[in-house]
Amino acid sequence: MIRGLIAPILSPFNDDLSFDQNTYNELAKTLLNSGCAGLAPFGTTGEALSISAEERKQALDGLIDSGIDPSVLIPGTGLCNLPESVALSQQAVDLGCEGVMVLPPFYFKSVSDDGLFSYYEEFIARVNRDTLRIYLYHIPQVAGVGLSIELVNALKEKYPSIVVGIKDSSGDWENTKNLLSLDNFIVYPGSELPLIDAMKLGAPGCISATANLNSKPIAEVIDYCEDKNWDKAIALHNSVAQTRMVFQDYAPIPAQKALLSQMTNRESWRNVRPPLIALTKEKTQQLQDALNAIEAG
Amino acid sequence: MIRGLIAPILSPFNDDLSFDQNTYNELAKTLLNSGCAGLAPFGTTGEALSISAEERKQALDGLIDSGIDPSVLIPGTGLCNLPESVALSQQAVDLGCEGVMVLPPFYFKSVSDDGLFSYYEEFIARVNRDTLRIYLYHIPQVAGVGLSIELVNALKEKYPSIVVGIKDSSGDWENTKNLLSLDNFIVYPGSELPLIDAMKLGAPGCISATANLNSKPIAEVIDYCEDKNWDKAIALHNSVAQTRMVFQDYAPIPAQKALLSQMTNRESWRNVRPPLIALTKEKTQQLQDALNAIEAG
Repeated sequence: MIRGLIAPILSPFNDDLSFDQNTYNELAKTLLNSGCAGLAPFGTTGEALSISAEERKQALDGLIDSGIDPSVLIPGTGLCNLPESVALSQQAVDLGCEGVMVLPPFYFKSVSDDGLFSYYEEFIARVNRDTLRIYLYHIPQVAGVGLSIELVNALKEKYPSIVVGIKDSSGDWENTKNLLSLDNFIVYPGSELPLIDAMKLGAPGCISATANLNSKPIAEVIDYCEDKNWDKAIALHNSVAQTRMVFQDYAPIPAQKALLSQMTNRESWRNVRPPLIALTKEKTQQLQDALNAIEAG
Repeated sequence: MIRGLIAPILSPFNDDLSFDQNTYNELAKTLLNSGCAGLAPFGTTGEALSISAEERKQALDGLIDSGIDPSVLIPGTGLCNLPESVALSQQAVDLGCEGVMVLPPFYFKSVSDDGLFSYYEEFIARVNRDTLRIYLYHIPQVAGVGLSIELVNALKEKYPSIVVGIKDSSGDWENTKNLLSLDNFIVYPGSELPLIDAMKLGAPGCISATANLNSKPIAEVIDYCEDKNWDKAIALHNSVAQTRMVFQDYAPIPAQKALLSQMTNRESWRNVRPPLIALTKEKTQQLQDALNAIEAG
């Protein structure tokens, strides 16, 4: 299990929108040297669904070839179709990744828990690896399909050594709390906002988009929590949460990429694949000003 | 342009859920011999998003190799990512298909019209074929992302010879009517329910899931409309609409497959890929009884 902060790493694109492997490898190393205990490549923040299966395969190979330890990686491998989801997952397992993060199939809406259970059953049978470790990925406001607590529990009961955890990006604290009450189950909140409360209930950290930019302070809050130094944790979490809240006024992925572009002096970090649109220079300046104001206290 | 009834052909799966090409080719021929003027492989009804890009590629090749005229085909090629959507579209264009049906990228929700416009622009540039003809695919209740009338019009104005039409599966007659008011634009309602009104306003037919089972009467309604024989059209449409309405009480894809299984004595037609679930035998009998009652008048 990865304890600490996990970054759903942003995906850099060249100006022709091809995947920029070198910049990806660089960011991965920077994050792991700046407080991140792990990386979750190809999550929502990584624009995973805008990237083809073949590109994802190559990018994961490239990341590991560049020297990143696969045991700190939980790549997203969930698509709508089983054959490609299975192939991506087999690759990740065979490379020695800690686990795979698996969205429910998200094209058909209002599907039954039985249908989703059957999807994951078929998925597990086809991946067909003893070392498969699945982190479910619950982000209903984007995917349009969520994972009920009953479904999560049924999967974990049937596959206790395979369905080991979940990333809960719902932003619904009641749901996160219910998940944290399940025995022997790893729950990563998808944001640093409920981090302290979640760690008090047994979460090993969080997987947060803002880790791409603000990893050190978030990691420090986690360290304080691990030491049960709650006063320091709460004090630092205050500014960490303020930073997070600033992003809520902006399209989060373009905003994070625009800031990273400024921080690294690499203009191409601004590139996003459509249907996302790059943040304007004006908006980027507003965002930077808002963040500076927080830093100035 | 295809005038008449177009079937969004169901996708048959073997018991191991692999794609059953022979049965697919058979159904295609049956439909084209039973009133269908065209086929739209890999729509929602065809469980397109549950099928990998490679399987779709092979299935389209297989269909055409079996003798189906590519000019009656409008395959769906829209995924969330550009590289695979573009590759599927190039294949369809190069095989001589009438056009391609292209969903908007449907993972990210609440994206802007500008972002979707930019997606289609990039798509058209990358497909890079003079003979590309796009039918937009508007099914917001499933995809979670729709195409506003302003966006449709902007695309059609910029690419008049490429963005030639739309399938409107919204079930929102106001929207269909607005689309039909655009000049030089082909609008297929995604159901036979508004067929007569749509044809009065210039629609060349419809693309309807029920065409997989009930093609002859629907095609006959279209013929009456073409002849402006409105009385006969309305009389026949009455029972056609009743049949359609029966399906609304059932999960439509499993229900259609269950009926087709009975009609063809091929048990495997019942197979669906998860997250869909096959219709139970009891439900199938209920459905059959309801349809028999309509036929008995």
